[in-house]
Amino acid sequence: TSNINLAVVAGDGIGIEVVEQGLAVLEAALKGTDATVSQTAFNLGAQRWHATGETLTDADLDAIRGHDAILLGAIGDPTVPSGVLERGLLLKLRFALDHYVNLRPAKLFAGVRSPLAEPGEIDFVVVREGTEGPYVGNGGSIRTGTPHEVANEVSVNTAFGVERVVRDAFARAAARQRKHLTLVHKHNVLVHAGHLWRRTVEAVNAEFPDVTTDYLHVDAATIFLTTNPSRFDVIVTDNLFGDILTDQAAAITGGIGLAASANINPDRTAPSMFEPVHGSAPDIAGQGKADPTATVLSVAMLLDHLGYAAESAKVTAAVAADLVERGTRVRSTAEIGTDLAQRVAE
Amino acid sequence: TSNINLAVVAGDGIGIEVVEQGLAVLEAALKGTDATVSQTAFNLGAQRWHATGETLTDADLDAIRGHDAILLGAIGDPTVPSGVLERGLLLKLRFALDHYVNLRPAKLFAGVRSPLAEPGEIDFVVVREGTEGPYVGNGGSIRTGTPHEVANEVSVNTAFGVERVVRDAFARAAARQRKHLTLVHKHNVLVHAGHLWRRTVEAVNAEFPDVTTDYLHVDAATIFLTTNPSRFDVIVTDNLFGDILTDQAAAITGGIGLAASANINPDRTAPSMFEPVHGSAPDIAGQGKADPTATVLSVAMLLDHLGYAAESAKVTAAVAADLVERGTRVRSTAEIGTDLAQRVAE
Ligand SMILES: CC(C)[C@H](C(=O)O)[C@@H](O)C(=O)O
Ligand SMILES: CC(C)[C@H](C(=O)O)[C@@H](O)C(=O)O
Repeated sequence: TSNINLAVVAGDGIGIEVVEQGLAVLEAALKGTDATVSQTAFNLGAQRWHATGETLTDADLDAIRGHDAILLGAIGDPTVPSGVLERGLLLKLRFALDHYVNLRPAKLFAGVRSPLAEPGEIDFVVVREGTEGPYVGNGGSIRTGTPHEVANEVSVNTAFGVERVVRDAFARAAARQRKHLTLVHKHNVLVHAGHLWRRTVEAVNAEFPDVTTDYLHVDAATIFLTTNPSRFDVIVTDNLFGDILTDQAAAITGGIGLAASANINPDRTAPSMFEPVHGSAPDIAGQGKADPTATVLSVAMLLDHLGYAAESAKVTAAVAADLVERGTRVRSTAEIGTDLAQRVAE
Repeated sequence: TSNINLAVVAGDGIGIEVVEQGLAVLEAALKGTDATVSQTAFNLGAQRWHATGETLTDADLDAIRGHDAILLGAIGDPTVPSGVLERGLLLKLRFALDHYVNLRPAKLFAGVRSPLAEPGEIDFVVVREGTEGPYVGNGGSIRTGTPHEVANEVSVNTAFGVERVVRDAFARAAARQRKHLTLVHKHNVLVHAGHLWRRTVEAVNAEFPDVTTDYLHVDAATIFLTTNPSRFDVIVTDNLFGDILTDQAAAITGGIGLAASANINPDRTAPSMFEPVHGSAPDIAGQGKADPTATVLSVAMLLDHLGYAAESAKVTAAVAADLVERGTRVRSTAEIGTDLAQRVAE
């Protein structure tokens, strides 16, 4: 038997509820295989911060490193100053564990209504860079709070960092049917970063001659996501543009209740992290209203990453079948989770 | 009689075609008033750059400064390296002439089909900051072209710059029926710039107590633009987020063929500039296929800015009437322009 040593960071708000269901589906998917799951729950997020002032200590990080993967619910709470948990916990995990591929599929499942496309017409994946760009935290302000304040934010982009994520995106495109890669940036304004991205895509394309490429400015990309989302196959883009586009992509494929993501360390020097794209949604937390589907689809990505391709496919198929029959029926978080786990077990 | 001393920068591609129609409508709108228009055409853009290597000289800028307003078509051509004309001409104009309010209305006119809303349901305006943020050009790269390249882009935000645009946005919100202002930023990640924006909105709100406010992260804003665009009244945001959101806003209100914009210097220390949101569209340039409506609506903003409120309203009404009857009828650039000018003259 093999064991999956899973770090569980349920986090804040609805994170706790959706992770519970994600774990149930994970157990169901592995039933009948020789794999087991052992979980370590990490108390990280608003509660821990209020109690101790800590976001993510070196000891936490070391403990997490010892695991095969991380399942994360959601981070963030209105009682904590904006940025404290995001920068000190969520982004710290992504950066410290070198999650340079932030993978976000956008697929319109049958049964899911989109104002902009028919089911099957949207099926692309965003490869969002996860360890550079304006997310690096290299900002600062002077004369803060005075009329002479200057607040800067620095986007840092390295050939090393851009090349590795671009290569990963090409490999994903090459493995897909359409084999098409779209670089999204804003190289007519952010000329230095943008030209590095562009040159890198051109150079790496030589290694993947059967992948076709094109380029869109980020503003134009939001137009095509509205008027012609089926034009996309694989998108590669920087950390901030990826953040923006993947929320829009979620909105056109059934909403963030369905949007999964994987923060991947492709070199496997540290555990990868799987999380729904949505936040902690404090307005509906604790009421059983959250849709755990995004977390369940993130669990499918986790299984795939760890080599359980068949089990991953079972989870995705269960979600697909559930969505076909879902209609406008309202179920609680636990009901959806139980239904999905049951389908997986069948 | 009063004279409008207009600088005309037709620019590249379809810019030339749409500006011609915009000028015809401007003439029509002023017929019967005591106002006249005198135009100075500036040869700026790809052709000039190829011929002389110049984008915008000090002499050009000085000459433009002497005018009451600028009508701009579009800048950019695939034969010119990306960024050269954008940074050296378009953004140089916005920055040098202190166009700190980049105003972009998003209105779903009757007769225009949107997959996301019924006519009348979308009516908001984006106040995009125009002279700061990641657009300042404070980037650079080292070891360019080597595996050790580092390319940075700096977003600069000042209390001075943020406060003036936020105040302008509040004043616009206060003058509207719903009196609602939404700040869009990403203060959970871009904590320094984001918190400056947030503090500024809170502070200036005291001067406009009847304006309600809320806040959205830029990623969430793209979701609401998809699922509930009618929630927006006035959006205030930084230069880059404003660029992204206004293209998405155009996409949900009939496309960039209809999206107008005004680069305003509210202190009137230099001429303001009026331009369609769309680009030079080299793929359809010179074929009479471009829709001049966005330029005509920009002319309406120009008239309003110069104090010709009744004439501005006439132009907007002509566009509204044309859109109601437009259907799927295909007309050339000149035909649409002529039809609009005729309606204005009626
Ligand atoms: C919570 C926030 C820091 C995060 C991000 O910006 O990456 C979120 O929006 C996401 O997309 O995972
Ligand atoms: C052409 C480009 C520099 C410009 C911008 O980014 O501001 C355009 O996209 C716009 O929105 O006016």
